[in-house]
Amino acid sequence: MSRPETGARDRIVDATVTLLRRGGLAASGVNQVVAEGAAPKGSLYHYFPDGKDQMVVEALQRYCVTVSRKLRAALHGEDPLGKRIKRLFRGLAKDMAADGFRSSCAVGAVALDLSQDDEVLQSACQAALTTWVSVIEECFQELPRSRRKPAALFLVTLLEGAQLTARAQRSDAAIHTAEHAFQTYIEAVAAVH
Amino acid sequence: MSRPETGARDRIVDATVTLLRRGGLAASGVNQVVAEGAAPKGSLYHYFPDGKDQMVVEALQRYCVTVSRKLRAALHGEDPLGKRIKRLFRGLAKDMAADGFRSSCAVGAVALDLSQDDEVLQSACQAALTTWVSVIEECFQELPRSRRKPAALFLVTLLEGAQLTARAQRSDAAIHTAEHAFQTYIEAVAAVH
Repeated sequence: MSRPETGARDRIVDATVTLLRRGGLAASGVNQVVAEGAAPKGSLYHYFPDGKDQMVVEALQRYCVTVSRKLRAALHGEDPLGKRIKRLFRGLAKDMAADGFRSSCAVGAVALDLSQDDEVLQSACQAALTTWVSVIEECFQELPRSRRKPAALFLVTLLEGAQLTARAQRSDAAIHTAEHAFQTYIEAVAAVH
Repeated sequence: MSRPETGARDRIVDATVTLLRRGGLAASGVNQVVAEGAAPKGSLYHYFPDGKDQMVVEALQRYCVTVSRKLRAALHGEDPLGKRIKRLFRGLAKDMAADGFRSSCAVGAVALDLSQDDEVLQSACQAALTTWVSVIEECFQELPRSRRKPAALFLVTLLEGAQLTARAQRSDAAIHTAEHAFQTYIEAVAAVH
């Protein structure tokens, strides 16, 4: 049971995630969140007295949790690693196509907007990436121990690149190419024992 | 010999490239270009009567040429492929570190800002990526013919992801990890004849 107040706060954070995924920091101002119908302006300042950065950090944290759950759902389990990797990339391609290639990673979008003094936002981006690397690492039990972390960072890097490229091309071609190439890489790494 | 007029136009386009690389579309408005000291406002409208999109498209085209030249300089030549790949990634890591990880690919930054009706900008992003894939493909003569294009698209995707991740982490770790992983992938692909 959530109180209505919690509901309003949640709607603000969800709307911020959506806007960040579409257009980064510039698209996620207080006025845009209000325009998304999430909440009246007064309640934004009520819930986020420190302003936009506070709202964006919370949105990145929530987005980090959502993506971690998706990564685990695809990559964890008893299926062969190749099948789990396929599930991850196919899921991403499906999600992006369903949205008309209009949205991508909220963390990626903020990262490319960072200026030198955005310390708080940069930390939030970095924290999300670190979390994802850890989540993936735990799912790569088949790989030699020393190769799990680099393989996980490589996958995170690749997923960011694939989303960006798919958006620029309005096509899932880069996602499928990345999937096949990552499979080739993983097979080579798994073979080295 | 360039006329002074050409110089002013060039400065505007260069400033737009710089601003796009730092903060994407939102950071590259007419006022910001003027603030960069590129040219007075009137001359922006003189050279780019169609406004910001025209300026951004031209900046993306120029950036595409610059990057194509860098790709060719690193990847073309007589050295073994592994050495050429190393040169490319090391050059990228050096460039990003020298800039304090404040800038990344102009095309990537615009891609993550695209809205559904930004047809002209989307085309410009897509064209740049297509050009880079072709440039790289030509440098991958050692690979089986059928693997050159996917390997080239994979590398473009990876370079976009590596720049984004390096920026979020303010570190070149993702670039080095991507380099090693891409080498592993290329060795596996080159071995299949």
